[in-house]
Amino acid sequence: MSARLEQQVRFIVEVDRLKEIFRQTVCIQSRRPENDAEHSWHLCLMVIVLAEHANAAGLDVLRVLKMLILHDLVEIDAGDTFAFDAARMADQHAREAVAADRIFGLLPADQAQAFRALWDEFEARATPEAQFATAIDRFHPMLLHCHTEGATWRKHGVTQAKIIARNSVIGDGSAAVWAYAEKMLQAAVDAGYVGT
Amino acid sequence: MSARLEQQVRFIVEVDRLKEIFRQTVCIQSRRPENDAEHSWHLCLMVIVLAEHANAAGLDVLRVLKMLILHDLVEIDAGDTFAFDAARMADQHAREAVAADRIFGLLPADQAQAFRALWDEFEARATPEAQFATAIDRFHPMLLHCHTEGATWRKHGVTQAKIIARNSVIGDGSAAVWAYAEKMLQAAVDAGYVGT
Repeated sequence: MSARLEQQVRFIVEVDRLKEIFRQTVCIQSRRPENDAEHSWHLCLMVIVLAEHANAAGLDVLRVLKMLILHDLVEIDAGDTFAFDAARMADQHAREAVAADRIFGLLPADQAQAFRALWDEFEARATPEAQFATAIDRFHPMLLHCHTEGATWRKHGVTQAKIIARNSVIGDGSAAVWAYAEKMLQAAVDAGYVGT
Repeated sequence: MSARLEQQVRFIVEVDRLKEIFRQTVCIQSRRPENDAEHSWHLCLMVIVLAEHANAAGLDVLRVLKMLILHDLVEIDAGDTFAFDAARMADQHAREAVAADRIFGLLPADQAQAFRALWDEFEARATPEAQFATAIDRFHPMLLHCHTEGATWRKHGVTQAKIIARNSVIGDGSAAVWAYAEKMLQAAVDAGYVGT
């Protein structure tokens, strides 16, 4: 049992590196780039606040949280891929799957398998839990971009049409959140934070 | 319903500020100070890895996660209080209770009440869930300090005896984790990272 705990602690120490993986989104107050660890916390918080808006009745909130706690660990090896970088997005899943093998493989076999299954479920977006987790993961950067005058969007020439094409999947997890997100995006367009 | 969602989103935007509250612990790789948001994520990850080591059978893991997602929000107003700063620790709970009133009060009344109850439960440390959440919250900085040569401990003249006095409460949540933590601390003493 003590060897098992030691192996688990080595995993916990290794994934401290998630705090050094920086994203394209910036924090609202300081405007510094956000890292994957604090992003993951913010998603968890959003889940416990917004779960009532999921399309699915009887959502397993614990499984949604587990998925979101784990979903970005692969970026420790694969790095953050900006959603609107078409070239890097093309092989994103392949790069991340290799990372998943290594990182979850640090755990005892039963946990490695369970965590990998959660990551695969999240990636496949076929269950109500994965669909709601995805909705929150997509809504979060939209929210931060809209509260930082869309600077990242404008820097990369991202348009309203591209944002809608990428993020309408939010509606599969929560029609209410997607309706809100569309309205928020339109307000950002009207304010000149993003082009059409 | 839309007004309720708008109120919830305002709360989510406000607590983005947790990413700007910096702690005495430093990240293992970069050695920069860790902030409360990424700390909270790391605790959640530790819970889903280590829950099997809880003293209590049948732990409600979802409630533990909710407590840890929320536990540091009060520091947005009250700031981080270093555990070994006796003067500031004296009125810590009073300062944080005022912060809890404001921050949870941003939510719709039913959620404000539910979240405040979770924070009160965490602070009281009387239930198995609160005891396990506390164990993880106390073990985490010990782990980071031991993996960064105890620099923060030495800077503040913190000794092994003080660390044990503050953290033996870990054993109330998990005897296995506390046994591991004591051994890890002894190794840090033997390596000269912390005095006795």
